[in-house]
Amino acid sequence: MVSNFLFTYQGNILEVDQHVDEEIGMFFMRVSWDLDSFGLEKDLIAAAFQKEVADSLEMKFELHFNTQKPRMALFVSKLSHCLFDILSRYYSGQFDVEIPLVISNHLDLKKVVTAFRIPFYHLPIDKTNKAEVEKQQLELLQKHKVDFLVLARYMQILSGDFIKEYPNKIINIHHSFLPAFVGAKPYHAAYERGVKIIGATAHYVTEELDAGPIIEQEVARVRHHNSPSDLVQIGQDVEKVVLSKAIKYHLERKVLAYRNKTVIFY
Amino acid sequence: MVSNFLFTYQGNILEVDQHVDEEIGMFFMRVSWDLDSFGLEKDLIAAAFQKEVADSLEMKFELHFNTQKPRMALFVSKLSHCLFDILSRYYSGQFDVEIPLVISNHLDLKKVVTAFRIPFYHLPIDKTNKAEVEKQQLELLQKHKVDFLVLARYMQILSGDFIKEYPNKIINIHHSFLPAFVGAKPYHAAYERGVKIIGATAHYVTEELDAGPIIEQEVARVRHHNSPSDLVQIGQDVEKVVLSKAIKYHLERKVLAYRNKTVIFY
Amino acid sequence: MVSNFLFTYQGNILEVDQHVDEEIGMFFMRVSWDLDSFGLEKDLIAAAFQKEVADSLEMKFELHFNTQKPRMALFVSKLSHCLFDILSRYYSGQFDVEIPLVISNHLDLKKVVTAFRIPFYHLPIDKTNKAEVEKQQLELLQKHKVDFLVLARYMQILSGDFIKEYPNKIINIHHSFLPAFVGAKPYHAAYERGVKIIGATAHYVTEELDAGPIIEQEVARVRHHNSPSDLVQIGQDVEKVVLSKAIKYHLERKVLAYRNKTVIFY
Amino acid sequence: MVSNFLFTYQGNILEVDQHVDEEIGMFFMRVSWDLDSFGLEKDLIAAAFQKEVADSLEMKFELHFNTQKPRMALFVSKLSHCLFDILSRYYSGQFDVEIPLVISNHLDLKKVVTAFRIPFYHLPIDKTNKAEVEKQQLELLQKHKVDFLVLARYMQILSGDFIKEYPNKIINIHHSFLPAFVGAKPYHAAYERGVKIIGATAHYVTEELDAGPIIEQEVARVRHHNSPSDLVQIGQDVEKVVLSKAIKYHLERKVLAYRNKTVIFY
Repeated sequence: MVSNFLFTYQGNILEVDQHVDEEIGMFFMRVSWDLDSFGLEKDLIAAAFQKEVADSLEMKFELHFNTQKPRMALFVSKLSHCLFDILSRYYSGQFDVEIPLVISNHLDLKKVVTAFRIPFYHLPIDKTNKAEVEKQQLELLQKHKVDFLVLARYMQILSGDFIKEYPNKIINIHHSFLPAFVGAKPYHAAYERGVKIIGATAHYVTEELDAGPIIEQEVARVRHHNSPSDLVQIGQDVEKVVLSKAIKYHLERKVLAYRNKTVIFY
Repeated sequence: MVSNFLFTYQGNILEVDQHVDEEIGMFFMRVSWDLDSFGLEKDLIAAAFQKEVADSLEMKFELHFNTQKPRMALFVSKLSHCLFDILSRYYSGQFDVEIPLVISNHLDLKKVVTAFRIPFYHLPIDKTNKAEVEKQQLELLQKHKVDFLVLARYMQILSGDFIKEYPNKIINIHHSFLPAFVGAKPYHAAYERGVKIIGATAHYVTEELDAGPIIEQEVARVRHHNSPSDLVQIGQDVEKVVLSKAIKYHLERKVLAYRNKTVIFY
Repeated sequence: MVSNFLFTYQGNILEVDQHVDEEIGMFFMRVSWDLDSFGLEKDLIAAAFQKEVADSLEMKFELHFNTQKPRMALFVSKLSHCLFDILSRYYSGQFDVEIPLVISNHLDLKKVVTAFRIPFYHLPIDKTNKAEVEKQQLELLQKHKVDFLVLARYMQILSGDFIKEYPNKIINIHHSFLPAFVGAKPYHAAYERGVKIIGATAHYVTEELDAGPIIEQEVARVRHHNSPSDLVQIGQDVEKVVLSKAIKYHLERKVLAYRNKTVIFY
Repeated sequence: MVSNFLFTYQGNILEVDQHVDEEIGMFFMRVSWDLDSFGLEKDLIAAAFQKEVADSLEMKFELHFNTQKPRMALFVSKLSHCLFDILSRYYSGQFDVEIPLVISNHLDLKKVVTAFRIPFYHLPIDKTNKAEVEKQQLELLQKHKVDFLVLARYMQILSGDFIKEYPNKIINIHHSFLPAFVGAKPYHAAYERGVKIIGATAHYVTEELDAGPIIEQEVARVRHHNSPSDLVQIGQDVEKVVLSKAIKYHLERKVLAYRNKTVIFY
């Protein structure tokens, strides 16, 4: 049906991926095609697709144009490794994205961010002001027309109300191989347990802590002589690569999230 | 001190590894040396070492001669992949070990085992006879002078009384990346959680389920299109390699277990 | 076009994968569908597809029915690790295949093979009889209606004439990470070069030594203290897994070879 | 002997690693110890060690104090990924190093470097001026008292005369899994060969191109749908991690190079 739609309007298919979840009988598809000689005006495509395809198939769909760069906000605290990795890819053009702002509860990374000419907002958080700060954050995100958020080792837990504003649009990096070592200090927990491999997990944030749909995971080998601080350092290399991969998949609209899982068409 | 001891009796050191756990102030060492021109009779070494070295350092030690092959018992149920992998290494001489017996609660693998001319004991287990069967198992192990046990996907939980007879001498393979997915059906749990990487863990069995000292772990990447049965199959390749590595480390006395962790001198 | 063909005859698509090599403008596709309520007799499908689809698209295609088990011949010499791994998967049903015969230039593995009730042919090779032996081998393969061959560490080089009989139907495992270390003794060459990672490569055999289309590769980490014989042992674990993966892809018709490369639809 | 020396002067050993290359009968050791209550003045250690230990054992040794930060020069061209990764670790303190200067034959990365307040020297190279530029480079390195160099995707080949000035002190990152794909455009060569895994190699530079002692290697999996430019991007993540690991080993004096190989005491 989708192919027929594109065929009808002479769309030249560039990429197509599909997946069937047989257990629940759901079909997933990602198609990209060339608009150059497409037989429909850009503004009419969504309505035509809805009527000619989606309605009859009870299909939900999103339509994106790659001429429109996604707008990504970064939330950071004190650790710089993920931030640098993201900014380095932004700088080199590997990430085709706008970064209209970075928000932090600390000042440590202000210099790094402003060196890239990105506005930096310092919104300190304590026990008393969390709801107020989240309100300010949301206003900033809306003002800057942010499409999605990345928590690049942001050391605060977002409230359910905040998360609801950006469903499957907040990417977090957790410094363990989830579901092992949920919560704080996972490297120390890994050290205590004596694991031989540590990991990192990029996932969409949901209300339940560290339990949202997993986008990407990677691991690294450790040995008995590695101290907890070795694990932190070894793990940081994994974190930054995993987070950047997840961002890239998200930017290229290759992630379909459903039922607390993800389909990744890479 | 240890080096001095060997130096005194003109022992030619072949391999030496050491490790300090700074947190708890404990020192670990593994030394192998040549007995050819060693200045002490084989039978006198342990006592001399105790007196000249271990006593003053409050050191615990084990002395093994590689002329004496360890005797390993295998416990299996129905799945053959780990059993084949172990027997294949036994056959090719990669494992320098005696396998005096295999014990199973099912008959499925009897043919495989007897093809290798290894005695196979069929001891079926149900809710009523577990204690009785464990008694028979222990008698068989003692009769066959078994040094250590390998649970090669043996689908029964051993009692605490049984485990106490073989402390840090029972190696189990758990089909998940521990501590994630403890207990039954870990591949199905991994599928439900939507992880991007699955794993397997070889560990010494302690009373707490799947919580003993980890010897080795390995992982494999999975994708959204992999069904639970794909995960089982992908995982089996990981399980067998991890278990055989753990056995090899154990056979070569490269594993020192303490405080629910392991030092592995590979 | 392919989808339309299946749609026309009411074929229920089970799996579909496609790939475009943009550089050379070639399209690859693998479709599996259910024959249960398909609107064409089994024997008529190929001709109909040729006429209705392939002709107009200048497409080459193969049609396989999964009710027909592929017939695989194994060639071995003295090393047992790959053989055991293959036979273990054959035994457990993971490989849906017939193994009508094993051919070897040595007797070492005869017992292993016959324990699985597979005919074993011993055809010793020396400098004088190679052409004659290859003739005997080809006769045996034809007599046993073999579909494809696996060289499971078979230590002989096949002649170009032999290879031509089974284009992209002879799978070899080379014990290096190709194209590094082509030819004999790759582990020793790897040791000499001081690499930190070793590997294995499964590929289709072509006339040029170790230069055919690569099906699968995998690696393992080594360190300065690993001797050449350590590398052999570490590498064997990689070899057997890589070879068995390649066999599985081939068995499931997931490999399309072209221009000395492979498309693998896993 | 080494232990005795330290014992004599009451040196508290912090780390010790040793290795025997049995093939050539050479012994390697790395010891770090605490100077706090050491019984020798800092300035007298080397001479005492030479006389009391090294002379009789025909041992070559180096003595380093970790109060003295190594001075590292970076050579870059246009690509930023390795540079950013190094500077990010320098910024966060993960690399305990001074970076007195960056030298480039292009201006592209000047802004990045100066944002970190590191002097940037632009020395363009063409066919006519190579010898002259190398002279200038060497003068800069001497003036800035550089201990070692890192070629962070520096796209020029150094002359033998230059290399001789810094034996085993020039670290290069080659964007292939050496010894496969020596020379230019390794990702394109990998694509042409149809490999399933690509890699990167950090090595000390010797006169023979891409043939010096390997310090570290890592790999990443690729598939048939990955274009050469995908390989470039996937590979860059591997390159930067491998290069930074090699730098770290070098900084921590964990690399002993001999006979075109390395012992790495990590």
